[in-house]
Amino acid sequence: MFEQLGLIGCGLMGGSFALALKRAKLVKRVVGYSKSPSTTERARQLGVIDVAAPSALLAVSGADIVLLAVPVAASEATFKAIRHGISTDTLVMDVGSTKGDVIEAARNGLQKQFANFVPAHPIAGKEVSGIEHAEASLFTGRQVVLTPVKTTLRSNVQRASQAWSGIGANVVTMTHEAHDAAFAAVSHLPHLLAFAYLNALTDQPQGDRFLSLAGPGFRDFSRIAASDPVMWRDVLLANREQVLQQSQAFRKALEDLETLMTAGDLQGLEQSIAAASKARAAWKPNSSADALAQQDS
Amino acid sequence: MFEQLGLIGCGLMGGSFALALKRAKLVKRVVGYSKSPSTTERARQLGVIDVAAPSALLAVSGADIVLLAVPVAASEATFKAIRHGISTDTLVMDVGSTKGDVIEAARNGLQKQFANFVPAHPIAGKEVSGIEHAEASLFTGRQVVLTPVKTTLRSNVQRASQAWSGIGANVVTMTHEAHDAAFAAVSHLPHLLAFAYLNALTDQPQGDRFLSLAGPGFRDFSRIAASDPVMWRDVLLANREQVLQQSQAFRKALEDLETLMTAGDLQGLEQSIAAASKARAAWKPNSSADALAQQDS
Repeated sequence: MFEQLGLIGCGLMGGSFALALKRAKLVKRVVGYSKSPSTTERARQLGVIDVAAPSALLAVSGADIVLLAVPVAASEATFKAIRHGISTDTLVMDVGSTKGDVIEAARNGLQKQFANFVPAHPIAGKEVSGIEHAEASLFTGRQVVLTPVKTTLRSNVQRASQAWSGIGANVVTMTHEAHDAAFAAVSHLPHLLAFAYLNALTDQPQGDRFLSLAGPGFRDFSRIAASDPVMWRDVLLANREQVLQQSQAFRKALEDLETLMTAGDLQGLEQSIAAASKARAAWKPNSSADALAQQDS
Repeated sequence: MFEQLGLIGCGLMGGSFALALKRAKLVKRVVGYSKSPSTTERARQLGVIDVAAPSALLAVSGADIVLLAVPVAASEATFKAIRHGISTDTLVMDVGSTKGDVIEAARNGLQKQFANFVPAHPIAGKEVSGIEHAEASLFTGRQVVLTPVKTTLRSNVQRASQAWSGIGANVVTMTHEAHDAAFAAVSHLPHLLAFAYLNALTDQPQGDRFLSLAGPGFRDFSRIAASDPVMWRDVLLANREQVLQQSQAFRKALEDLETLMTAGDLQGLEQSIAAASKARAAWKPNSSADALAQQDS
């Protein structure tokens, strides 16, 4: 399907995408570049990429598919660096957790080639990063959200959709505004809450003692607090308005529960917890008819 | 080690304790009672209990070890119901998530037999409940907190410790005040936050749409929101002061992060997230030297 993947950023996400395309026999050759030459070399040794390129521009030269898997804050500079290597037929994608800001970066960085860019957000990841943890199955059964704009080449949206579907992901298409609102709610806010929770805990004199008693509930609830600080700093700032709006709605719900507790309102408290419990028990990953209805076909 | 276990409440926790004691050959016979006769009968059919008793009092008659595994709110009535079946040598324990209120219930309910009661909180569980999910290994490698008071028989504390150690749990002893403060921080508050988060999400017109896009981060963070509403209503009310205090500390930490976001303070935000991330990455279940130092031996 593709001749050559130009991979910018040989980390967990980029490396997994390369491995997945290779396993599905959807690409013949992967040329990779990372800011750190030792990372690029390691990716080559691990067989994630076939050729190590000395620059981002050289990595994309001759590629018919390009994936940017760099920190979101580095997007604009990277788009600028590769602009002259992008031909009319090249499909360019990213893997960023926020889309409004990356689209702005692509518009500024790619300029005339902006129509080639299909913004993509695969809903997958690990708390560990780095090429060593890349795996071909990272995106299998996961959702990938594409957020093309009006000027995005329709043919590229289709090719993007086929590439992700081809490696086993479920493709959903929506506007970047809808994406950023949704992920503020289901991803960015939970991270913010988990960071705040850990900080509140460790700021207490007895914090370490408390932590030593934590069990499986704590383990799962707080897992995302271990996420990468630089990446999440950028995500929270890039999607600031939406995240703060979600945080406000959360505070209100927390206040409601606290009020019920303070009042000793057994029935009210049980009802409120039951609503949350029912909603969570009914949730299944990737199963909503609503999402399926919007699936790119 | 024990002749007969009197089990009051044949659910996930009680059933798992009975199975574990049997597997470790620490008990010869289990007599069980549940409020619902069909549950008691089911426990007998599954081999979790050997004899189904028609009342709580009859379940404990002749037992040298008694486990109350009933909703915390039902503790006092249950203690009252079994009081006359408790002999001087009987070890009585519970499995409640809060300890101050259960101790009060035992004091009122058991009266002269109060010294026989060793308050216990095994840090284990599942989001599913019921005897069908009971398993002998539920407590293996988990912590169990014992919170005896001054008048508690030392011999019973030792027997309690041996019973839990014998089924593979790590026993920690502390005051009930220390227990309730710690679990407000590492268990009760996370549940409250998860409930509030789900409610805030589903109260939004787009909530269902958002939920359909949620991934693995959401899954783990919100897992405890699916917990039992009646049980958690009781836990949150029983430990109200401590939980509200923890919630206040959490709000402050959330405000601090929001302030950094609003100010666009890259360095401050990264530092704050890094502190949380580092603390969470360093956490290991049951590994703290501090907790080990307090381990009952």
